[in-house]
Amino acid sequence: MATRQLTVDRERSTERIGRDVETLSGPRYTSSDEAIRRYAYTPEYRNTLDYFIRELESLGFERYEDPVGTLVARNRPRGEPVFGVGSHCDSNRNGGRYDGTLGVVAALEICRLNEELGLGLPLQLVSFLEEEGSGFGQMLLGSRIMAGRVTEEELREGFRAVDDGRSFWEHAEEAGYDPGRWQESARVLDDLYGWIELHIEQARVLQDTQKRIGVVDAIAGYVHSDVTVHGRSDHAGATPMGLRLDAGLVAAECMLKLERLAKAAGEGTVGTVGELALTPNLINAVPGTARFSLDVRGPNEEAFRRVTRNLAAFAEEAARRRGMTAEYRERQALSPVALSGGIVGALQAAAEGSGEPFVRMHSGAAHDTMSIAGRVPSAMVFVPCRDGISHSPEEEADPADAALGAEIMLNAINTLSAGTR
Amino acid sequence: MATRQLTVDRERSTERIGRDVETLSGPRYTSSDEAIRRYAYTPEYRNTLDYFIRELESLGFERYEDPVGTLVARNRPRGEPVFGVGSHCDSNRNGGRYDGTLGVVAALEICRLNEELGLGLPLQLVSFLEEEGSGFGQMLLGSRIMAGRVTEEELREGFRAVDDGRSFWEHAEEAGYDPGRWQESARVLDDLYGWIELHIEQARVLQDTQKRIGVVDAIAGYVHSDVTVHGRSDHAGATPMGLRLDAGLVAAECMLKLERLAKAAGEGTVGTVGELALTPNLINAVPGTARFSLDVRGPNEEAFRRVTRNLAAFAEEAARRRGMTAEYRERQALSPVALSGGIVGALQAAAEGSGEPFVRMHSGAAHDTMSIAGRVPSAMVFVPCRDGISHSPEEEADPADAALGAEIMLNAINTLSAGTR
Repeated sequence: MATRQLTVDRERSTERIGRDVETLSGPRYTSSDEAIRRYAYTPEYRNTLDYFIRELESLGFERYEDPVGTLVARNRPRGEPVFGVGSHCDSNRNGGRYDGTLGVVAALEICRLNEELGLGLPLQLVSFLEEEGSGFGQMLLGSRIMAGRVTEEELREGFRAVDDGRSFWEHAEEAGYDPGRWQESARVLDDLYGWIELHIEQARVLQDTQKRIGVVDAIAGYVHSDVTVHGRSDHAGATPMGLRLDAGLVAAECMLKLERLAKAAGEGTVGTVGELALTPNLINAVPGTARFSLDVRGPNEEAFRRVTRNLAAFAEEAARRRGMTAEYRERQALSPVALSGGIVGALQAAAEGSGEPFVRMHSGAAHDTMSIAGRVPSAMVFVPCRDGISHSPEEEADPADAALGAEIMLNAINTLSAGTR
Repeated sequence: MATRQLTVDRERSTERIGRDVETLSGPRYTSSDEAIRRYAYTPEYRNTLDYFIRELESLGFERYEDPVGTLVARNRPRGEPVFGVGSHCDSNRNGGRYDGTLGVVAALEICRLNEELGLGLPLQLVSFLEEEGSGFGQMLLGSRIMAGRVTEEELREGFRAVDDGRSFWEHAEEAGYDPGRWQESARVLDDLYGWIELHIEQARVLQDTQKRIGVVDAIAGYVHSDVTVHGRSDHAGATPMGLRLDAGLVAAECMLKLERLAKAAGEGTVGTVGELALTPNLINAVPGTARFSLDVRGPNEEAFRRVTRNLAAFAEEAARRRGMTAEYRERQALSPVALSGGIVGALQAAAEGSGEPFVRMHSGAAHDTMSIAGRVPSAMVFVPCRDGISHSPEEEADPADAALGAEIMLNAINTLSAGTR
């Protein structure tokens, strides 16, 4: 399986990746003047797919779209084994140029290099529909459809457009797709013998440790939930301290407790209270209700589940001690995903071969790769983004890092494909 | 000065007060189906003033309105000394039937009893404009104008209608008033030799101690301020616990610290974080900014000022310890007001004479009486409200308590006026 390190012109790759990103930040590809805003079934999303289609067809790729609109392009007929690369090209509503799109652009660069270097690697590029959930409020939607992790009822009725409240089904049909055949989306994975997704890190671990590449060996699972504390709203001036049922104080105790629990759990476990709403939220009223969100994650499911359970129990106890009540309700949970040792190993060897600084790490954020890693041996590559900023027009990443990522992925795929040719 | 206890038909007073309150809760007197909502220069506010004017004119009172719309009615010509009674009849936007209005109704009942019992007490009823701030976001506005605690610039430009953003000045002129003469509002107080305001307690001290009357000997002062903590928003999944600058955690520490400081200060000091806003307030984002309000009050200025200073210093220190910064900014502050020993003493004697359970207490809430107590010897009477609920359509109070309050006030005024006749 050992193959020689491929000689890649990194500067040319950097230039092409930079040009792709620049083009896809233009007015035809976003509906906002101030940010990247594109999501499923909009003209700017269509233009973005068409850009990739044109580039891939010029490389001799054949393309199709699955029954809901995930873009697939391959340089081998269907039925033949291929190695998958890609990401998503939809954005947050107030998003940046790099989140998702940089992974599709890097995948396109891999396809270009494969042609230029005459490697003949069998490749399939995938650009998943609606990773961010900007269109229908559903994260990882395209890849979840592909993995069969949705119900027909949800697609027909449950999932509604953020903009106009009409169903996903109706919008998909209007855009010319055939959602009635959504289960056939799974076939996109039929021929894949491996998958690598490149993505910006969305945090500052690479920047702070001065690495250019993260080889991702696991994706954290998470629990999203809400805690509601029921106290009593009283006049803030007229109610003595001893007669209050201040729901805000229980929330405050829980916020600090969650920090202690997550730190104590270790193993990459993190816990965040990101949303907090006091009612009535007036300067002169004791908060009668406090509702806050919990986001608890990590690569070790037992660890982050335990943190969540302990926090829920603490909330009840902290409320009870003050004469109040608290309810815990889970919104959503996802198990962590261990990525393929074979693919991760090949990436690590290729990263070592590149001579550039890299680190093995887990992904704290969710990615489409979570949806497909159960069917296809998968891994991910992270590149740094400035100050960890993402989901913002301030998002910045260096095309040179993406070019390095593409080179490392190409080397890994070349190694992994040695036995298949 | 000792006068005999007046014989009052409490049931008839209760019935009349109940009828007034019932009438003023009807559709002509509120712009909401679900709450009492009336504020300056609206038709329902005008109807409310007109109701009091009709009732007072039928008792032979002459009325005028000051240059901005505070209603004044008196049974002696201007220039002769009178004893003042009243409150306000504007409401919160989502208010109840009793806050303010019950005090004007009780004052009207005192005027009725004065006629019926042939006491011949010289009285002046005042219904202050815009106590709640629903119209222009300015609490105690009418009484602050009367006390000269506003600037012409504020009235002309600074104070803007919540509904349409136009100035107070413009609205006052449109309603037929003469705001250019606002400084003449002060003359309303010229002839007053005393003032008593009845109000619902807005807390649960009376209910919890089974008292029907609170004789109020001081009104708490307060500091309203904001603390803003500047951290850094990061991805909640991808950012390790040790690399975070979570502004929400500093806010949580401050909330709990404020509770400890207020409890330790004693002397009726209370402290509340009523408003809290995290930014971006997303389940999957570490809060980059936390802004929270402080409401710190008490009858002892040194005590509540110290709590506020200590909390501001703590916020800075707590932020600094976590690598963040915090700023403290005062919105508004008011010194506590000690009420007149003479009036309080007369009320206490009258309350004792009534044979009903009462307590001397301070007011934690602000009232118009704060604005005028510097010029006129003043006191207040509190009656219970169910569960301390106010500023809500759920507000409930017993007209029989207000009738008892009117009787006690009448007795006190009768005693205090003995030397003037």
